[in-house]
Amino acid sequence: MTDGSVHRAARRLTAAGDEALDEVVAEEVAVALVYNGISHAVMMATPCDLEDFARGFSLTERIVDKPSEIYDIEVEPVDRGIEVRLDIAAQRMVRLQQQRRSMAGRTGCGLCGVDSIDAAMRPVTVVGAAPPVSRGAIERAMAALPLEQRINRVNGATHAAGWARPDGTLVAVREDVGRHNALDKLGGALAKAGASQPGFVVVTSRCSYEMVHKAAALGAVVIAAVSAPTSLAIETAEQAGIALAAFVRQDRLTVYANAERIAP
Amino acid sequence: MTDGSVHRAARRLTAAGDEALDEVVAEEVAVALVYNGISHAVMMATPCDLEDFARGFSLTERIVDKPSEIYDIEVEPVDRGIEVRLDIAAQRMVRLQQQRRSMAGRTGCGLCGVDSIDAAMRPVTVVGAAPPVSRGAIERAMAALPLEQRINRVNGATHAAGWARPDGTLVAVREDVGRHNALDKLGGALAKAGASQPGFVVVTSRCSYEMVHKAAALGAVVIAAVSAPTSLAIETAEQAGIALAAFVRQDRLTVYANAERIAP
Repeated sequence: MTDGSVHRAARRLTAAGDEALDEVVAEEVAVALVYNGISHAVMMATPCDLEDFARGFSLTERIVDKPSEIYDIEVEPVDRGIEVRLDIAAQRMVRLQQQRRSMAGRTGCGLCGVDSIDAAMRPVTVVGAAPPVSRGAIERAMAALPLEQRINRVNGATHAAGWARPDGTLVAVREDVGRHNALDKLGGALAKAGASQPGFVVVTSRCSYEMVHKAAALGAVVIAAVSAPTSLAIETAEQAGIALAAFVRQDRLTVYANAERIAP
Repeated sequence: MTDGSVHRAARRLTAAGDEALDEVVAEEVAVALVYNGISHAVMMATPCDLEDFARGFSLTERIVDKPSEIYDIEVEPVDRGIEVRLDIAAQRMVRLQQQRRSMAGRTGCGLCGVDSIDAAMRPVTVVGAAPPVSRGAIERAMAALPLEQRINRVNGATHAAGWARPDGTLVAVREDVGRHNALDKLGGALAKAGASQPGFVVVTSRCSYEMVHKAAALGAVVIAAVSAPTSLAIETAEQAGIALAAFVRQDRLTVYANAERIAP
């Protein structure tokens, strides 16, 4: 339906004068996630891989516990946005409605509908034991990521999240104007591909609390970022038992949590 | 209470070996905004200038219509986060509760507690006529911004938003790990300083829908960004009647909306 980029007329202003441009910009659209007919959340997202997005969001936000609890996903353009309509297991819908009822009359904001610090700082998934990932594998996965950033190659303004096998081979990459959305799309793509596989997450952005939380929900043993981590990302990685690697370059990286998960 | 940065032990891994580092990272904390005793929203933010943040958020999200409807703001550390407690005018609290009641049982997500596309795509402030701002003024304001990024100078991982007079003089700058938060802090700082003044916004980030929406709410005639705009940011700037300048450099910029607001 779209490749995530659109053309817009623009003007470049310089001392030498004014030049008309045909610019390619990242598409950003309001996307509503509707569960069993009830609208739950709206995110601004790049309208590609929205089935993956809905599946991944449902899993990382623990609306469902496993992919098989999602029976159907339909993507439907509506006025001023896109609705993604999910059909989920009845008992999961009951749980979601209970959560929603407990928040009745108290809307949420900023962090997926939560209005209390306790709800925001929800328990993080603890990732089990696994052999360490080598520094080289992380550097290789990060180096391979740009080759798979098909949307960013066109518009230069989208983030990517990739899943790599322990040896550093990238198996899936997803993109979005929002870094959290890219990670949720990745989660959905992995879930669709079936059986969970060991591996780690590489992202083109900074690494915040939410990124670590979602990576842990996907069972990643490492989250590796091009740019800097926040204080809360480090704490959350420590709690999740996953390694947080940042400033990943071709020949070096910096580890901020659970360094024993990375073999030098 | 904090300068927005904290020290964390880290290890740099390279082919040459493993080096212990004392790293400075951006602080990220769960911040709850509590209106007249009712918790409304939680954002992950850098815990500096939180009074400005709460004041600016209340204005750009139209919880209050003017700064004088906020009677008091208290910042209170709590378990696992910070509460910012606002005392607002009774009639604004009634309106907020009506909005919240209309969403009862339907929590929101992603975009400040909204769960429908219509609520997400809320009307944008239309900014009135004003003399054009010169390209040079925008470039000067952007060039001056790094000198005022006191938090980023230390941790290298925070965004900034600045307000410039029409001649390009920066009058206020605020920083945060989140670009929307930086802009809300800026809005609060301007409101505290009193009478609204003509001017424009400069930001160190990309330019999304929410950034334009908030800049328009502050009455900016231009939003100028270091990096790329999204498609919806451009549409929203067109609707708000404000110029959207992106890829601002020392000697050039690209205008994507309302170019007549910028004098070449």
